[in-house]
Amino acid sequence: MPLQDYMHIISVDDHLIEHPRVWSDRLPSKYVEAGPQIIEDEQGHHVWVYEGKRYPYIGLNAVAGKKFEDFGMEPVRYEDMIPGCYDPVARVKDMDIDGVQAAACFPSFPGFGGNVFHRANDKELALACVKAWNDFSIDEWCGSAPDRYIPLGILPTWDVDLCVQELERIAAKGARTVSFPDAPTMLGMPSFHNPVWDPFWSALEHHQIPLSLHFGSGGYVPGFNYSSAALSPNPPAAGDSPYAVAIAGFATNLMWSTLDWVFSGQLQKHPDLRIMLSEGGIGWLPYISERAHETWSRHRWYQDIDKATDPADLIRKHFYGCFISDYFGVKNRHEIGIDRLTVEVDYPHSDSNWPNSRKILAEQFVDVPDDEVHQMVELNAREVFRFPRSEG
Amino acid sequence: MPLQDYMHIISVDDHLIEHPRVWSDRLPSKYVEAGPQIIEDEQGHHVWVYEGKRYPYIGLNAVAGKKFEDFGMEPVRYEDMIPGCYDPVARVKDMDIDGVQAAACFPSFPGFGGNVFHRANDKELALACVKAWNDFSIDEWCGSAPDRYIPLGILPTWDVDLCVQELERIAAKGARTVSFPDAPTMLGMPSFHNPVWDPFWSALEHHQIPLSLHFGSGGYVPGFNYSSAALSPNPPAAGDSPYAVAIAGFATNLMWSTLDWVFSGQLQKHPDLRIMLSEGGIGWLPYISERAHETWSRHRWYQDIDKATDPADLIRKHFYGCFISDYFGVKNRHEIGIDRLTVEVDYPHSDSNWPNSRKILAEQFVDVPDDEVHQMVELNAREVFRFPRSEG
Repeated sequence: MPLQDYMHIISVDDHLIEHPRVWSDRLPSKYVEAGPQIIEDEQGHHVWVYEGKRYPYIGLNAVAGKKFEDFGMEPVRYEDMIPGCYDPVARVKDMDIDGVQAAACFPSFPGFGGNVFHRANDKELALACVKAWNDFSIDEWCGSAPDRYIPLGILPTWDVDLCVQELERIAAKGARTVSFPDAPTMLGMPSFHNPVWDPFWSALEHHQIPLSLHFGSGGYVPGFNYSSAALSPNPPAAGDSPYAVAIAGFATNLMWSTLDWVFSGQLQKHPDLRIMLSEGGIGWLPYISERAHETWSRHRWYQDIDKATDPADLIRKHFYGCFISDYFGVKNRHEIGIDRLTVEVDYPHSDSNWPNSRKILAEQFVDVPDDEVHQMVELNAREVFRFPRSEG
Repeated sequence: MPLQDYMHIISVDDHLIEHPRVWSDRLPSKYVEAGPQIIEDEQGHHVWVYEGKRYPYIGLNAVAGKKFEDFGMEPVRYEDMIPGCYDPVARVKDMDIDGVQAAACFPSFPGFGGNVFHRANDKELALACVKAWNDFSIDEWCGSAPDRYIPLGILPTWDVDLCVQELERIAAKGARTVSFPDAPTMLGMPSFHNPVWDPFWSALEHHQIPLSLHFGSGGYVPGFNYSSAALSPNPPAAGDSPYAVAIAGFATNLMWSTLDWVFSGQLQKHPDLRIMLSEGGIGWLPYISERAHETWSRHRWYQDIDKATDPADLIRKHFYGCFISDYFGVKNRHEIGIDRLTVEVDYPHSDSNWPNSRKILAEQFVDVPDDEVHQMVELNAREVFRFPRSEG
């Protein structure tokens, strides 16, 4: 038994579906109408409406509990999903069934990194929406079971000063990580290379809050067929890529994010910043580290790149990876760094093994010593998210 | 000595710089003026002019023989380059210095996959230009030393029937591979998923000619900062990615190409088609194979994907990888398939180790048995390109 009963599983990447009153319960009354609201459309589907626009998929890819054969049917009403998708009390019961102790839960309607609010027209309303989501996430969702949920926040990414202010606010009430776009420039934001973010990175260091970069949180999934590679359940056009191509290539987003960071010069200025690569797998990290090192060895002389710091060392120091199933990554775990690996469950999405997460993880650890398994499934996540086991 | 003297090094990815008369010597006289010609511009630079447009970099990144510290200075006149860049006789001498027996050489001015002609306005002229490049490549360049150059062609990629016709023509005179865009849809071409290419894939099988997909040959290098990630020597804008990010991420192009192919259903119809991933490295292949398998296992039921064929098996069967320096890939060579690995020199570009290619390769093979080294440096390339050792 390489995955022992005493080891908790801490998932660094799960997803919650917002219930219909997340914003209407919290926004100032003047904003309730323009803020996100669930309506029932002509087809009887539950859809979000925000600033007059409809967002048709309430529970993108929320297929927990379905057979593989039944995937691809997007839930169109709340009752199409199991309650654990949107009810934190029901979720804990599902985590118990799955043998999972705690989880960090990303947003759904706002986008993994809050890009819906980033793109909004009324930025005062958008800021109120970000705050409302954070209050919901930290107070209502995580507050319902503080030892089971790792408080995760989002940010008003269109303004660095607002980011700092909101970070201060949510740090004070217990945020342990923030989701940030993996590809900021795709949202029109300054890149990771841009020193404009400096005060925000400093604030993260000060509060010991790691960034969680979820693939696709920049509103972009790479792929050569944009029409089908977008995060959309629409069937691809004839002769276009099936969505499987995008799914299989998710990690490439985070390869770019990682490379952007380590060639940005920012990590040298922010030695205590930590970055979680959410839902990116791990088996590619040694290749990308070696390639970053090789690129730096040859090409740093004529480019505006730190001449003294090897980017492979920056990856080793600042980045954490996570996996659901990654035999090749587990086999090469020491090439990445056993203290930088964590696991995820991805409930309720289609890559999740719920209710068999513990079993599927255990199968990958057959040849792994107990202490290393313990680090990967529990201890590293507790350390990076400052989320210790509760007493007793 | 793991790299023995009797082992030839066959580079599956080198680059030639076209000399000024490649097209003017060959195009029908009515086309010479509109066809590619070298002029000397106001700054005394040699630039290509084609259909009235200027293409300023004659020898993109042709830095062979320079120190790392001097990289980044694009050659602006032919005499800024060593003659091996554009003279096949001088190149053979440089290959001798480097201990390299044979090489497949990709185009420069036309783009790695001929995308300049793909984008041209006058398609009759463009077809003549493609044919002229192929005649130059196969007859003049490779013909100067048939046992040292693996004949490589390009194609009129805007028309599948023309592709088949040109393939027939160059196969008859000895082409051993063709360079094809790695990301066709970025050039407005039908994707690998589109059955329109069927006759062309069949023709490749019939002539036993593998496709060479060079990263970037679709005219696209992925990256979140398009302005700087493009293959351009322009310095990035302030706050933008340095070009190192794109260089380090080259392989991500070919990850997408590989995933596109194995979820396309086309390889099942073309069991003899072989694909070389040119300049993509190899250390990522086991991760992507496992991820493709995992995606297929879960997501094939509701998508238009072959239910019977595991994409990991398709990668193992149809794809060849190559590397310059990839310790992690060499360590995991059996996870990829020792019969699918080849090496490259990338002369005269900045990732090349010329004149130390043999030495740098040897260092990677310290722990590798002789027979496996021989497969990787020579035998696999000779097999896939049908390029046997010459007698005597």
